[in-house]
Amino acid sequence: MNRPFTFINSAMSADGKISTWQRKQVRISGAIDFDRVDELRATSDAVMVGIGTVLADDPSLTVKSAQRKAERKARGLFENPARIIIDSHARTPIDADIFKKGEGQRIVVVCSSAPSKSVEALKEKAIVIISGDTSVDLPDAMKQLHELGIKRLMVEGGATLNWGMLSSGLVDEIYTFVGNIIIGGQVAPTLVDGEGFTDASTLPLEMISAEKIEAGLLLMWKVLNFQ
Amino acid sequence: MNRPFTFINSAMSADGKISTWQRKQVRISGAIDFDRVDELRATSDAVMVGIGTVLADDPSLTVKSAQRKAERKARGLFENPARIIIDSHARTPIDADIFKKGEGQRIVVVCSSAPSKSVEALKEKAIVIISGDTSVDLPDAMKQLHELGIKRLMVEGGATLNWGMLSSGLVDEIYTFVGNIIIGGQVAPTLVDGEGFTDASTLPLEMISAEKIEAGLLLMWKVLNFQ
Repeated sequence: MNRPFTFINSAMSADGKISTWQRKQVRISGAIDFDRVDELRATSDAVMVGIGTVLADDPSLTVKSAQRKAERKARGLFENPARIIIDSHARTPIDADIFKKGEGQRIVVVCSSAPSKSVEALKEKAIVIISGDTSVDLPDAMKQLHELGIKRLMVEGGATLNWGMLSSGLVDEIYTFVGNIIIGGQVAPTLVDGEGFTDASTLPLEMISAEKIEAGLLLMWKVLNFQ
Repeated sequence: MNRPFTFINSAMSADGKISTWQRKQVRISGAIDFDRVDELRATSDAVMVGIGTVLADDPSLTVKSAQRKAERKARGLFENPARIIIDSHARTPIDADIFKKGEGQRIVVVCSSAPSKSVEALKEKAIVIISGDTSVDLPDAMKQLHELGIKRLMVEGGATLNWGMLSSGLVDEIYTFVGNIIIGGQVAPTLVDGEGFTDASTLPLEMISAEKIEAGLLLMWKVLNFQ
């Protein structure tokens, strides 16, 4: 396989939303789930988000546990996994928290029609990978990331990137923490947005496990990609 | 409490969708879940859907099991629970399957500005309840249904009615079968659409149970309505 082993991790409400219609993040899970997510980050080669998530939430995506950071250092790694932004048109702000917080590599994936001025500015902050003409070619981007040594990739959303990765057959597993709230909203982002599958083409999963955690449930699925 | 005990039952994909973006229903659950739903119908006083579901799916909402129908008859009931459509503007087609299939009461809830010609036509097929001025006033409608003897009400969707009922504080429990597929789609209907809650107002739930059924999971939640 010439792409990373890739999993999506996301918390969602009991009705499948990852934020409100205003794109405001809501506390869906608790301390135990936060710690689980931190462990996933610490044991991945890279974590990845879409530009929409960067613009809405400005996450740092750093490992939070001092012990896990020390363990990574002891293994000769940066404290944080590489942080990747899928950003076709090079819209990532130069002062994004991903650039400011924590040590480790930053990689921004843009397409060849991204404005060169923005691309040059991003090169001051990150490795810039070019893939695709009018938007990022995700299968090609995964191949390039694999060649850079990324073997285990954690996708942290959002809904549009999740769709792009799943519909391109690039995801191996999906982990969802289902929280004990209803968010609702016709336009609220869900776990998987984008165009969507038709009734003839939905993507089959196989349940790996279902485990109660605090007031919610951690569901782990294997993606049965089409051959 | 001057309203029925009310629960929502719905199958949804692992990403919270109840149908595709084309509003086509997808097989999300299997025979065991179908049988569970049939039992819920047979033991409810009424089942309810919104007009959107009638127009998209034309469901009959009948009890399927011959034994359950016989048991209802033996208890002096119709074979099927009362079937209720929330239909503010009286758009239910006169030849809808709800009217054609199976014995039992039909109730259509319209608002007072619904076209009288359509209302008169519906009165040939169903009991018509008038509630609200420009759209159905759900709390008032639940009160009227309760007065008609409906003590246990099953809501079978869709996404807009689920929002209306939940945001009005009219739902006691939510049962979701989470199936082993991804449907995706920014405009695909989810378990709860409508306007949506804000980050300051999300609706809290308490998990009753989580049970693996076939390749999916049945989640039962208690709604912690605001006091």
